[in-house]
Amino acid sequence: MSAISKSPLYQIARPESIAIFGASNNFSSMGTIILNAILADGYEGRIFPVHPKEKRVLNLGAYSRVGDLPEVPDLAIIVLPTKIVAETLRACGEKGIRRAIIVTAGFGEVGGEGPARQEEIKAIARQYNIRFTGPNCIGVVNSHMKFNATFLSSACRPGFIGMASQSGSFITQMFDYLDTRFGQGFSTGFSLGNEADIDMADCIRYLGACPDTRAIALYIESIRRGREFIEAAREVALTKPIVAFYVGGSETGKRACLSHTGALAGPDRLYDGVFKQSGIIRARSVEEMFDFCYALGSCHLPKGNSALIQTHSGGPGAAAADACGRSGIELPALSQATMEKLGAYVPHTASVKNPVDLTFTKNPLDYFKAIPEILLQDEGADSLLIYFLATEAMVHRALVSLGVPEAEIEAQVKKIVDDQCASVAELMASHGKPTLGFSFLTRQNPFISGLQDKGVPVLASPERAARALGALVEYGRLRGKLARSKRSSSV
Amino acid sequence: MSAISKSPLYQIARPESIAIFGASNNFSSMGTIILNAILADGYEGRIFPVHPKEKRVLNLGAYSRVGDLPEVPDLAIIVLPTKIVAETLRACGEKGIRRAIIVTAGFGEVGGEGPARQEEIKAIARQYNIRFTGPNCIGVVNSHMKFNATFLSSACRPGFIGMASQSGSFITQMFDYLDTRFGQGFSTGFSLGNEADIDMADCIRYLGACPDTRAIALYIESIRRGREFIEAAREVALTKPIVAFYVGGSETGKRACLSHTGALAGPDRLYDGVFKQSGIIRARSVEEMFDFCYALGSCHLPKGNSALIQTHSGGPGAAAADACGRSGIELPALSQATMEKLGAYVPHTASVKNPVDLTFTKNPLDYFKAIPEILLQDEGADSLLIYFLATEAMVHRALVSLGVPEAEIEAQVKKIVDDQCASVAELMASHGKPTLGFSFLTRQNPFISGLQDKGVPVLASPERAARALGALVEYGRLRGKLARSKRSSSV
Repeated sequence: MSAISKSPLYQIARPESIAIFGASNNFSSMGTIILNAILADGYEGRIFPVHPKEKRVLNLGAYSRVGDLPEVPDLAIIVLPTKIVAETLRACGEKGIRRAIIVTAGFGEVGGEGPARQEEIKAIARQYNIRFTGPNCIGVVNSHMKFNATFLSSACRPGFIGMASQSGSFITQMFDYLDTRFGQGFSTGFSLGNEADIDMADCIRYLGACPDTRAIALYIESIRRGREFIEAAREVALTKPIVAFYVGGSETGKRACLSHTGALAGPDRLYDGVFKQSGIIRARSVEEMFDFCYALGSCHLPKGNSALIQTHSGGPGAAAADACGRSGIELPALSQATMEKLGAYVPHTASVKNPVDLTFTKNPLDYFKAIPEILLQDEGADSLLIYFLATEAMVHRALVSLGVPEAEIEAQVKKIVDDQCASVAELMASHGKPTLGFSFLTRQNPFISGLQDKGVPVLASPERAARALGALVEYGRLRGKLARSKRSSSV
Repeated sequence: MSAISKSPLYQIARPESIAIFGASNNFSSMGTIILNAILADGYEGRIFPVHPKEKRVLNLGAYSRVGDLPEVPDLAIIVLPTKIVAETLRACGEKGIRRAIIVTAGFGEVGGEGPARQEEIKAIARQYNIRFTGPNCIGVVNSHMKFNATFLSSACRPGFIGMASQSGSFITQMFDYLDTRFGQGFSTGFSLGNEADIDMADCIRYLGACPDTRAIALYIESIRRGREFIEAAREVALTKPIVAFYVGGSETGKRACLSHTGALAGPDRLYDGVFKQSGIIRARSVEEMFDFCYALGSCHLPKGNSALIQTHSGGPGAAAADACGRSGIELPALSQATMEKLGAYVPHTASVKNPVDLTFTKNPLDYFKAIPEILLQDEGADSLLIYFLATEAMVHRALVSLGVPEAEIEAQVKKIVDDQCASVAELMASHGKPTLGFSFLTRQNPFISGLQDKGVPVLASPERAARALGALVEYGRLRGKLARSKRSSSV
């Protein structure tokens, strides 16, 4: 049995069959909305709606009691009124179900009977060896299984960013974000809710073992089991990067967390220390969290903190250079060999300093092949930042001026843009150095989506690319430190 | 004569007729590319290509010498080889042309004869009373005149952000950026190049007087005339916000600027002081510069630094709260009156603290009307931040569950979304407090474009909205300080 299948989250993230409680033919109930998302995203496992009255739910055969199911499903998804959650969980246990997602709220996060109710379901779970996420969570999504048990449908392509979140919003409401920025969904995303049983430390271990996940994002309002969290992170961060976004650090953030999940947030510096000790990179915003994960999941790690910048526009190059300085990235001078090799490709208006500002290139394809290849060979630099501007319009113009017939131009433009994207992707694959692109264009531009879809990370601005490169450097350092500390403790 | 028409930039930004030098029927020459952009964007003035051999250029009648033109155009655009720029400028002067954009490079920014050539064109300009931008610049764009003399076509809708840039890229390469993020183009954007004559101080005064411009963005690598810059900014900032992005502050940024435009950048702290003294808000990235201008051009100024946050998702609310804390924004408790008024609209799962986390609303329209109205009336807060999530899918679902026939749903969804957007826009217009939206969705979502196009600013993340609100507060303070200092000096 592999590490991942031993995780309590295995059947939650990759169930072969599910029972769902609370779905009906009333379109506005949360249970129905979740079942609709499961169906819309194309889950291929078996689904058993359990409903006391309906014979069919959303065209699926329904069962009036969980005891009547023809098999023991891997997972129960419970979206019922608070007061019948406990008896339902018990019935699931009797049936032999060992995993659950409890979406229902009204437990530890509220006053009155809430905390006692939470203790009750924990006791039932212990009795039946049930492991569960929630209560008060939003579900789980796995783009590789087309399994999306959250309340928004996603239809995202398989992605490599895994996430565990103490806010369900940062799972469901990020489907569109990840799709429009990076063209992918979560490898797996967990909404944790009250963490009455399974918590963030479990998620870190699961995502660490998950073969689809290349970088792990954490949204944290409070860490409940400190020691387990640090141990899990230190182990996983040895081989996979972890990025955390923590919002409880300011006074205003702290009060908001308390009111959102009842979490008692700690001071910024305390969390900074915990993250550093755990080998975790801290992000200062949602955008930064995903930028870092996207770059970390796409790139080789740099050997050090020096970079070359390739641009054909002075302003974006200068902005990237300034941002590198502020992110601890050094910009060495080009080696003599690099300058000589570049000579054949650059016009007299170009600057063969670092940033390499080409202004324009004699042959436009050089920008995507010959020139970055020379820069990647420069031994004085550990990484490469490249500015990308739409080439479509320029390619189109060049073809018109070459007298290419109008009818053929579209296909030729597409082919040339594809070749340019493939060329950068090949360079990235064949060199051990990280290559990070940046552009103000979005995936609505076929050149940007082409690059990203071939594996070239393109970030939304020079500053964001420079900070992401800073995260790559930081992860390299943190990982080295973890490895040294592990070696010395095992001596 | 109004202030704006006295500016040397008036005929450059709003010419009724232009002569263009360097355009031909060769599609890949820069002059042709610029003329193509002018035609593509739909300029309605008269255009006179001047070409020694061609009788027609891009289907316009061409003239072999500027002396042959049937009238004296407002503006000459010169995109010729370096060595014939001087004689062309002289010929323009002889014809009586008094404004020019000199795109051609190879002057003060290069070594050898460059500086002497620049002195030569300055002398000719003085002799003929010609005022010009450049050399080594990329042109000008005015979305309200459909006049775009840069090398990329824009086709943007009229916008309210004016810009002066020491990098042409931050004009032309931002057309797509402003369009996809905010649905608008530059009110007017100037690329300054070497600033041999007209410089940033002139642009600040022009944009200050321009009725289409509500906020001014500056991209700065170096300030050449310090006293004039500060005087112009202090005067304009009394009535219109100015945001500067300066990249020469770090060692790496400084070296990049030197190589890009020959600018000698100064240390960060020096520029911080200059900006503060000038009433200018400093942005730390390109994204921040435009976010700030967009918010400043859309909102009333807040009386102070306190805000309420309205959300239906805890995570984005907590992130906004934390970011507010880091941007100097305070989050006061709701007043007793506000809590009582909210009571009628919120479910028992809601948090009537600040952030106001509604989880869901009984009537979805309340989120866009009744609730923000109550929050805007709270006397303890100076501004409102609202989180927006796609309502389309939810509205669609609600209509299905109400049994609305499938054929009518699309039109009804559109109408409801329109009403929601209009409702927020009306609230904004009828209350003196700034209202800033934030969402992870883009303008590809009709709800976001609907809000923005009706005048409700929506920024791309909670952190960016909080920082933009911080810029509003800062501008209020800076403006008050400028006004007090002006009063005391005039006593």
